[in-house]
Amino acid sequence: MRLSRFFLPILKENPKEAEIVSHRLMLRAGMMRQEAAGIYAWLPLGFRVLKKIEQIVREEQDRAGALELLMPTLQLADLWRESGRYDAYGPEMLRIADRHKRELLYGPTNEEMITEIFRAYVKSYKSLPLNLYHIQWKFRDEQRPRFGVMRGREFLMKDAYSFDIDEAAARRSYNRMFVAYLRTFARMGLKAIPMRAETGPIGGDLSHEFIVLAETGESAVYCDSDVLNLPVPGEDVDYDGDLTPIIKQWTSVYAATEDVHDADRFDREVPAEKKVQTRGIEVGQIFYFGTKYSDAMKAMVAGPDGVDVPIHGGSYGVGVSRLVGAIIEACHDDAGIKWPEAVAPFRVAILNLKQGAEDTDAACEKLYRELSDRGVDVLYDDTDQRAGAKFAAADLIGIPWQILVGPKGLAEGKVELKRRSDGSRENLSPADVLARLAS
Amino acid sequence: MRLSRFFLPILKENPKEAEIVSHRLMLRAGMMRQEAAGIYAWLPLGFRVLKKIEQIVREEQDRAGALELLMPTLQLADLWRESGRYDAYGPEMLRIADRHKRELLYGPTNEEMITEIFRAYVKSYKSLPLNLYHIQWKFRDEQRPRFGVMRGREFLMKDAYSFDIDEAAARRSYNRMFVAYLRTFARMGLKAIPMRAETGPIGGDLSHEFIVLAETGESAVYCDSDVLNLPVPGEDVDYDGDLTPIIKQWTSVYAATEDVHDADRFDREVPAEKKVQTRGIEVGQIFYFGTKYSDAMKAMVAGPDGVDVPIHGGSYGVGVSRLVGAIIEACHDDAGIKWPEAVAPFRVAILNLKQGAEDTDAACEKLYRELSDRGVDVLYDDTDQRAGAKFAAADLIGIPWQILVGPKGLAEGKVELKRRSDGSRENLSPADVLARLAS
Repeated sequence: MRLSRFFLPILKENPKEAEIVSHRLMLRAGMMRQEAAGIYAWLPLGFRVLKKIEQIVREEQDRAGALELLMPTLQLADLWRESGRYDAYGPEMLRIADRHKRELLYGPTNEEMITEIFRAYVKSYKSLPLNLYHIQWKFRDEQRPRFGVMRGREFLMKDAYSFDIDEAAARRSYNRMFVAYLRTFARMGLKAIPMRAETGPIGGDLSHEFIVLAETGESAVYCDSDVLNLPVPGEDVDYDGDLTPIIKQWTSVYAATEDVHDADRFDREVPAEKKVQTRGIEVGQIFYFGTKYSDAMKAMVAGPDGVDVPIHGGSYGVGVSRLVGAIIEACHDDAGIKWPEAVAPFRVAILNLKQGAEDTDAACEKLYRELSDRGVDVLYDDTDQRAGAKFAAADLIGIPWQILVGPKGLAEGKVELKRRSDGSRENLSPADVLARLAS
Repeated sequence: MRLSRFFLPILKENPKEAEIVSHRLMLRAGMMRQEAAGIYAWLPLGFRVLKKIEQIVREEQDRAGALELLMPTLQLADLWRESGRYDAYGPEMLRIADRHKRELLYGPTNEEMITEIFRAYVKSYKSLPLNLYHIQWKFRDEQRPRFGVMRGREFLMKDAYSFDIDEAAARRSYNRMFVAYLRTFARMGLKAIPMRAETGPIGGDLSHEFIVLAETGESAVYCDSDVLNLPVPGEDVDYDGDLTPIIKQWTSVYAATEDVHDADRFDREVPAEKKVQTRGIEVGQIFYFGTKYSDAMKAMVAGPDGVDVPIHGGSYGVGVSRLVGAIIEACHDDAGIKWPEAVAPFRVAILNLKQGAEDTDAACEKLYRELSDRGVDVLYDDTDQRAGAKFAAADLIGIPWQILVGPKGLAEGKVELKRRSDGSRENLSPADVLARLAS
């Protein structure tokens, strides 16, 4: 993409309304624009990041055997009356009447709708296990939306729902999502630690939150430093096999948010030199809730003995739009965002430090063409801004690799390759840069 | 994908509520489920088709130089008061009040919001031309939703918006979208004919509808048969070049829907043997509306002489979810859907005609693995249904290529390759099938 043809409205001033760094940087980097309280438009740069995160989530759900579908944003109020949550949900639910005065709502989550779909078609234990997910916009009418996409009202969530014949099978489904989440967040360059959690309005008795460690996080977190170095399962993890050793490994080391922190146990179990106290951001939560919805909504299947039993369910959420903010909270410095490569809007930026000069133009065009031809996501800053402004913009929007092309270096056959994560720089020939980035 | 692990709730009975063939077939093939009047959940099979259509639309928008972003589903009522459309829009607009009694609406289209985004950032003609698009769920509260996804209430639309300094430049933007639409629909295996159209509530004085020819279409269509054989621009079309010859070629041959049909001209200009009268379905519409929104909403940029002028705009819609129905209306027979390959949920189905027999199981597993390894989208029917039911299901859901693996053929080293579009069959070795489908 040529920057001269892109839409990247970078702000020079720090926006006053932004209280936290991710909100500030997303506005400054031209990633999004507020359209109403807690409701945002994703501008092209932000949209690219959102899509990359969504795709990683999708790939890991698919790998774990979940099936993607797509439920609508609007739901019938009557569906939520079946579970009893229509009245229970309170003012965070956006309630709507259509032209015929039928009561609708903008879905904040989909346990009821997916249970309705399930019970319409599935009649036998032979169709289980089944895990259905979608990635769809949700709405929660927060009393006081703030912190940008970290606590918005219209937000993008991946929510998966598992259906099993009994608790043992349901726990295997739960474990599959547990492992999928470990992989999902690790692929985004995040340390996300599973922590035992309260179940809240979803219900049930087993739940884990996945918490990204970030000093600017919303809640205090206590853990044993060993949990930071546990191995994340590889691509070859066998989701049909026994996952309990992985779950045991991850849940036996102390890690808790302040809500459930047990100071005595922390002192007793964790040696002083391994005590970590930091802050964290919730980016996912998984629940096993048993027969809560299947009892209320009569989602029954015939078991091997022919007798109908209510299915055992779980639900599994990832805050897709929230992750954009969470990654920035975990990956930034004073100059701007430092995107992990897997979610960067562009992997490489080419900065033409003397736009209009024959040699730099030719070298940049050649690199741009060669990198693009090899499938590298590259942003070519071909604007007539001065070099300093180009450096600042590339750092602000956080492109992992920056190729600085100036007349002095070119005279010696070199360009400069800068790595955003640590600021390291190397002088290399264009051919070597290409080999490095397109391998 | 193994069918035993997929979620494909095929209906044996014809659903009574479905009045048209695409609605009937989408329900029977387990592609979707109605959740409220005109509001559907996309089940896994339907979701796969929706995504393939969306991706073709995206690729052709990108190729034409449009930039993708994503606006929210909910909008502020005040934004629509600026253009005067809040009151004008009538009962089809879904109006919502949030917990603080602020007036919102579920966007039926986005001219106002994109103009608000544009005017916030763009100040100079130097940033033009600019074309921004998104693919997002919309809502129109139809008085009587029907015909499944063909006239739903919650529907997926691609809408692009162009911004130019004057009418001449705006017409160039219009022409780029015109050509992109020709390519988009052709890639989906559709004959979509651009026809001059009324502008309706969007406004302006120049508009074309893109009409898919289908005998079951919603409106009568009159055209010269020459328009059916015009060449569609290739991948290498130069969007920076002069597109007027292509536009002239496509607009000089008679083609009109009944709304604007001129019977006298049709008789005068079209020789009898070239007169075509059939039916059609609108799948896209493009508009040039000049300064309608920029005047009302003060979207001004400084021209080369430093004087602020209102920008000239256009908007360009594709009915992404409607296309799923439109393609079925154009591509089906009594046995079910006949998907064009580019949008098929799976390109290939393997039917194991004797599940559990050592030889057929082994041959199917090998084909399944080899096709999957080569990146072919394949559905392996590994269920214990009888052969007849497998044939019927594969035809109903419309998989373009079906590999029938039975014990008799295998004894001679052959499987049968069936093509859904014309029913043709060939006996081939598994190696030849692989070479044919994975090339």
